[in-house]
Amino acid sequence: MTQTTAPTLDRAEIDSITRTAHLLADAARVETLRLFRSPDLRPDNKLSDGFDPVTEADRASERAMRAILARERPQDAILGEEYGSQAGSSGLTWVLDPIDGTRAFMSGAPSWGVLIGVNDASGPIYGIIDQPYLDERFEGGFGLARVLGRGRDLPLAVRRDVPLAQATLMSTYPEVGSPEESRAFGKVAAQARLTRYGLDCYAYALLAAGQIDLVIEAGLQSYDVAGPIAVVRAAGGVVTDWTGGPAHEGGRIIAAASPELHAEALRLLGS
Amino acid sequence: MTQTTAPTLDRAEIDSITRTAHLLADAARVETLRLFRSPDLRPDNKLSDGFDPVTEADRASERAMRAILARERPQDAILGEEYGSQAGSSGLTWVLDPIDGTRAFMSGAPSWGVLIGVNDASGPIYGIIDQPYLDERFEGGFGLARVLGRGRDLPLAVRRDVPLAQATLMSTYPEVGSPEESRAFGKVAAQARLTRYGLDCYAYALLAAGQIDLVIEAGLQSYDVAGPIAVVRAAGGVVTDWTGGPAHEGGRIIAAASPELHAEALRLLGS
Repeated sequence: MTQTTAPTLDRAEIDSITRTAHLLADAARVETLRLFRSPDLRPDNKLSDGFDPVTEADRASERAMRAILARERPQDAILGEEYGSQAGSSGLTWVLDPIDGTRAFMSGAPSWGVLIGVNDASGPIYGIIDQPYLDERFEGGFGLARVLGRGRDLPLAVRRDVPLAQATLMSTYPEVGSPEESRAFGKVAAQARLTRYGLDCYAYALLAAGQIDLVIEAGLQSYDVAGPIAVVRAAGGVVTDWTGGPAHEGGRIIAAASPELHAEALRLLGS
Repeated sequence: MTQTTAPTLDRAEIDSITRTAHLLADAARVETLRLFRSPDLRPDNKLSDGFDPVTEADRASERAMRAILARERPQDAILGEEYGSQAGSSGLTWVLDPIDGTRAFMSGAPSWGVLIGVNDASGPIYGIIDQPYLDERFEGGFGLARVLGRGRDLPLAVRRDVPLAQATLMSTYPEVGSPEESRAFGKVAAQARLTRYGLDCYAYALLAAGQIDLVIEAGLQSYDVAGPIAVVRAAGGVVTDWTGGPAHEGGRIIAAASPELHAEALRLLGS
């Protein structure tokens, strides 16, 4: 859970990264809002068995972000949900989910988001969760922890004084994951005051904003978590996998507002 | 499902009702946004067993609406979630849910709404679903079907050409209601392409806006449904209970984008 920044990142480099990240988020806003709630939105299915939707909005959003990276940061690697991996030489990787929550997007519900993470060898060091329809951009890393938009620039900070018995827990899917994962989640949910579903990446933004206390999910991909990990940590939260190890490769994730809540939930998940 | 308007409602009366409804929604916006995401928000619990939150925002929102009705429409009856029933002489009843989705409200998630319905003896004849944080006001009845806000005035219309196999279904709680109700819901969910949870009244707004196709819920109160019924019907949708009867007393609700989808889902719910 230590967060090391590559020593080569001087102020000019950090400014370049954050400026580029906002350019990416701006471009993704244009592409996603163009198709959000549009009758022209027709989801394709990625799976032959089941339903894993992808839309032209996902693809256009990622293409727009990759075009900016090619111009502004050609030395960095890229990992994106729709267009895969591209190598780099800087030791930094941009981890992009052009629309996290495509199911919400195609339902007209503004809980989807554009996720941008910057990883070094240690994991995420900076990230953005952008919700274009709400005009909310949650940013964390390099000493920043803030939400921009709606004419404001507000600090992000988790609330640290809520015990599990008073906590609000979120997960995107009620089934969480496998039956075993669902049972483990249920042990935490049984102790929490309130459990809510369906918010995708926006749940991590609410955690960073001090509105909820726990997010527990399974079956995630690395591009689902890089941006959220950076934002939640910058706001003072703790993010690991369900064994307390690094979470940035995806899989089973727990994000908690405080070390105490994290420890209590981890104990229940492993019990 | 016939929607009869009391013959006494002339144009001046209709204008008075709609103007008053917008005054109510405006006042509720002030009270709810004042406490949404505020550290001053401290939910109380209505239940000794379980958790049914109510906040000062719920109470202040309903008080503000009742004060306007006392001044503008003293002849009408009122039924509100927090302050109960008040008799009237006009044959019209204002049905108010000052915050539908208090659990979402206290989690910082903008899927809660202010619900305003106007019922005559036949049921809802006019309604508003207002989402203050999104600046979206869905209005239906008296020939109106529109969403106001975000600098726009857009028509509301359901999408009627989606079969169940391609449909998006929503319900607020994954458990839906009793085990029997959950099993019935599961039969519809198994046939739908996508099932999503957690959006409270905003699901009905998305249905009216042509973004989703079905909302199926149980255990609702009359104040949960009056406004949504009016908005969904005005947009061309069908709302009944699970037997095809009137839905405005609450209980088990199904709202569908088309008569065909409604019939197909009803058949599964009763099978």
